[in-house]
Amino acid sequence: MAARLAGDAKRAARVVAKASSSVREQAMRAVADRITVDAELILAANRADVDAARTAGLSAPMLDRLTLDAARLAGVAAAVRQVAELPDPVGKIESMARRPNGLLVGRMRIPLGVVLMIYEARPNVTTDAFALCLRSGNAVILRGGSEAARTNRALGNAIAAGLEQAGLPAAAAQVVPDTDRRLLEALLLRDEEIDLAIPRGGEGLIRFVAERARIPVIRHYKGVCHVFVDASAELETALAICENAKVSRPGVCNACETILVHEDAAPRIVPALVARLASRGVEVRGDARTVALGGPSVVAATEADWSEEYLALIVTLGVVPSLDAAISHIERYGSQHTEVIVTRDHAAAQRFVAEVGSSTVMVNASTRFADGGELGLGAEIGISTSKLHAYGPMGAEELTTRKFIVFGAGQVRT
Amino acid sequence: MAARLAGDAKRAARVVAKASSSVREQAMRAVADRITVDAELILAANRADVDAARTAGLSAPMLDRLTLDAARLAGVAAAVRQVAELPDPVGKIESMARRPNGLLVGRMRIPLGVVLMIYEARPNVTTDAFALCLRSGNAVILRGGSEAARTNRALGNAIAAGLEQAGLPAAAAQVVPDTDRRLLEALLLRDEEIDLAIPRGGEGLIRFVAERARIPVIRHYKGVCHVFVDASAELETALAICENAKVSRPGVCNACETILVHEDAAPRIVPALVARLASRGVEVRGDARTVALGGPSVVAATEADWSEEYLALIVTLGVVPSLDAAISHIERYGSQHTEVIVTRDHAAAQRFVAEVGSSTVMVNASTRFADGGELGLGAEIGISTSKLHAYGPMGAEELTTRKFIVFGAGQVRT
Repeated sequence: MAARLAGDAKRAARVVAKASSSVREQAMRAVADRITVDAELILAANRADVDAARTAGLSAPMLDRLTLDAARLAGVAAAVRQVAELPDPVGKIESMARRPNGLLVGRMRIPLGVVLMIYEARPNVTTDAFALCLRSGNAVILRGGSEAARTNRALGNAIAAGLEQAGLPAAAAQVVPDTDRRLLEALLLRDEEIDLAIPRGGEGLIRFVAERARIPVIRHYKGVCHVFVDASAELETALAICENAKVSRPGVCNACETILVHEDAAPRIVPALVARLASRGVEVRGDARTVALGGPSVVAATEADWSEEYLALIVTLGVVPSLDAAISHIERYGSQHTEVIVTRDHAAAQRFVAEVGSSTVMVNASTRFADGGELGLGAEIGISTSKLHAYGPMGAEELTTRKFIVFGAGQVRT
Repeated sequence: MAARLAGDAKRAARVVAKASSSVREQAMRAVADRITVDAELILAANRADVDAARTAGLSAPMLDRLTLDAARLAGVAAAVRQVAELPDPVGKIESMARRPNGLLVGRMRIPLGVVLMIYEARPNVTTDAFALCLRSGNAVILRGGSEAARTNRALGNAIAAGLEQAGLPAAAAQVVPDTDRRLLEALLLRDEEIDLAIPRGGEGLIRFVAERARIPVIRHYKGVCHVFVDASAELETALAICENAKVSRPGVCNACETILVHEDAAPRIVPALVARLASRGVEVRGDARTVALGGPSVVAATEADWSEEYLALIVTLGVVPSLDAAISHIERYGSQHTEVIVTRDHAAAQRFVAEVGSSTVMVNASTRFADGGELGLGAEIGISTSKLHAYGPMGAEELTTRKFIVFGAGQVRT
C-alpha cells in the first residue's frame, strides 16, 4: 500500500507542479466550500472519534485538540481560504545576474515534490498541511493519528472533492487510510517518491520518524525557550514579556520554560517577577540565588529542570553573572527554538542576536511570537529546530527549493 | 575516535562561528602560505601515495586525479586564497520587514556548524572544502580516500598550522587519520555533533553514506545531462553546444550524455551532428530514426543506454516528436543535474525552463557551465541533485542556514 500511495502522490505532484497559481487557488477555495457543505458529516465523524478517544482515556488537552465544533470547523475552512490568498512561491525568480561571458544566471523557486506529513490528534493539521502544500505546488500524504482517523477521512473526502472540482488529481492530497505504524515505516523508506517528511507531535513520534526514515526529515524536537532579563532591562517590560511568554498559552512549543536574570538586575527583578508569576498560578523553580531573592514560594530546581519542556504553568528561574553566561546556558540547555533578551542596552541586544544560534532570536518581545503567522509567513506547516533546509517556522516558501536557470546565446566553455 | 573527532569539531565550530570575517580570511591566507612553504613535504607525501596507488593498480584517470606536481599544488594554494576573497555569507541579513504590531522581523545567515566531507582520491578537495567551510563559518571533518591518505595528512598539517597562526583551533578542520570504513560509519551516526554530510565521488560511496547516515546527507548521485535541440534551433549553435557539452571534458558530471533532437529539425541536424561528433572521436548510440538519418557510424542504443552516465566519448542520440516528449524523456531518464534546450523559439525556451525540474536548466549554453565557479558562486563544495536544503552547485552560502531575528519594543501576544 505504501508503494501505491507514494507512486500516486508522485504522479499527482507532477500535475500540481505545472498547475497555475489560480487553479491551485480555485482548488483551495473549493475545498473550503466543501468543508462547509459537508460540515454535518465531518462533525459526526469527529464526535465518533472523540467518543472513542474519551472511552480509551485520552488526556483532556489531547481531547480538546481533537474536538471540532461548528465554530472550529468554520475556522478550519477559513484557514484554507487564507492560504489561498498567500503569495505563490512557485516560479519566483530570486536573483538574476549576468556573468562576464554574457550568461544570465538566476534562481527560480520550484516545489519539492511530495511531502509526507505525520501528526497526531489535531484534525486542523490535515487541512492546513493540504493548503500549504498546494500553495507551494507540492503533493502531500497526510498521516494523522489514529484517534482522529474518522475525522481525517471525512476531511480527506472534502479535500479530494475540492481538488477534482478544480481539475486537479485527488492524489495530490491523500489521507492515509490506515494509521498502522508498519505502513508509516514503509512510507518512510520510499525515497524515490517522497521528498520530505515533516513529523509534528511529541518527541517520541519525531524520534520514531527520524530513526527510520530514508527520506529527509524536518526535526522539531521540543521548545525549551528562554527569556534573558539583562542588567539594563526595564522592570515592567520584563514582567510583561515573562508573563506573556509563560502564561498566555503554556501548552505550546513557543511558551517560555526558563527565565534567566542578570545578577545586576536580580535584586530589582526577581522578587517582582516571582510575585507576578505566582499571581498567575505559575510554579517557580529556582536556583539558590532565586530561592534567596524570591522567597518561600520558590521551589529549588533540580539539574533536570533546566532542560525540561514543561508545557504547563511551571517555569525555571535562574540568576546568571553575565550575558556570556546566559548565552552559554542557552547553548547547553536550549533546544534551538526561541530565545529572547529583554534589555535597553543596544550592544547587548546586538551580541545576543549575533551569538545565540537558535532558530528565532528576539529582542524585547514575547517568545510567543515564534510562529509562522506572527512572523509574516502567513501560516506554518511546522517549526524546524534543525538547521538543514529550513530553520524556525516554515511557511509555503520553505516547502520549495531553488533551481538554477541560465539564459545564453550559444556560449560554450573553453 | 568518532566521538572525539566529532566533539572536537563541535567545540571548534562554536569558536569559528564567532570569529570575524577577517580572522577567517587571515587563516585561509596563512594556510595557503603554509602550503607553499611545505610544498616539498606535501609533494613527497603525494609521490608516496601515487607510487602505492600505481602498485595497487589504480586506474589511469584516478591516478591523474591523485597526482600533484608543483604547478597543481600552486593551484591548490591559489584556490584557497581565492575563497578568502569571496563575500562572507555569515551574518548577512536577507530581509527585514515590519509587522503590523511593530515587530521588525528579519532573517540572518548563520553557519550550519560541523560539516563532514567524504571524498575519494582528489587531494584538492581537502583544501577546497576546508576553505569553503571556513568562509561560511563552519568546522569541517575531512575524510578523503585511503589512496590519498599521506597527501591529505600533509595538507592537514598545513591547514592546522595556518588555523593556529590566525588564532583559530586546529580542530576547525580535521583530516580523519584513519580511512577505515568503520570509523566513517561511526561518524555518520554522530547527529548530535555533525550537522551535514557531503559525499563526493562514485555512486557506491554516496549510497553507502546515504543508507547509513543519521545526519542529513547532500546527495549527488550522477549527472545524466541532456541537450535538447528544438525544432527552431540554429544549426551551428546546436553543433557547437553539443560538441562542447560532450567533448570538452567527458569525465565530469556536467558533461552531456544524451542529445535529443526535435523531429522537425532531425533531417537538418542529425547528419551534421553525427559527423561533427564522429570527427571528435565520439561514439554515437542512436534510436531507430537516428540510425536511419545518421548513417552507418551510429550504433543502435539499448534501453539501458538512455540512463547511462558514460563519463567517456560516447553519447546517446534520439529523435523526439515534441518539446513535451523531450521533457518527459528527461523526467524519466535524467538525474536532475543539468539540461539544456537549444532553440530560437522564446515560448519553447520559457516552457523548458519552467517545466524541467532539474537543478540547473539552461537555454542556448553548454551543460559544462553547471559549476559553482561558472554560475557565480565563486567555488563549489559539491552539486546537489536532491532538492532538500540546496539544489545544484553549492557554494559558501549553501553551507549556511537562516535564523529569524526579531526586534521589538516590549510586544506581547494577545
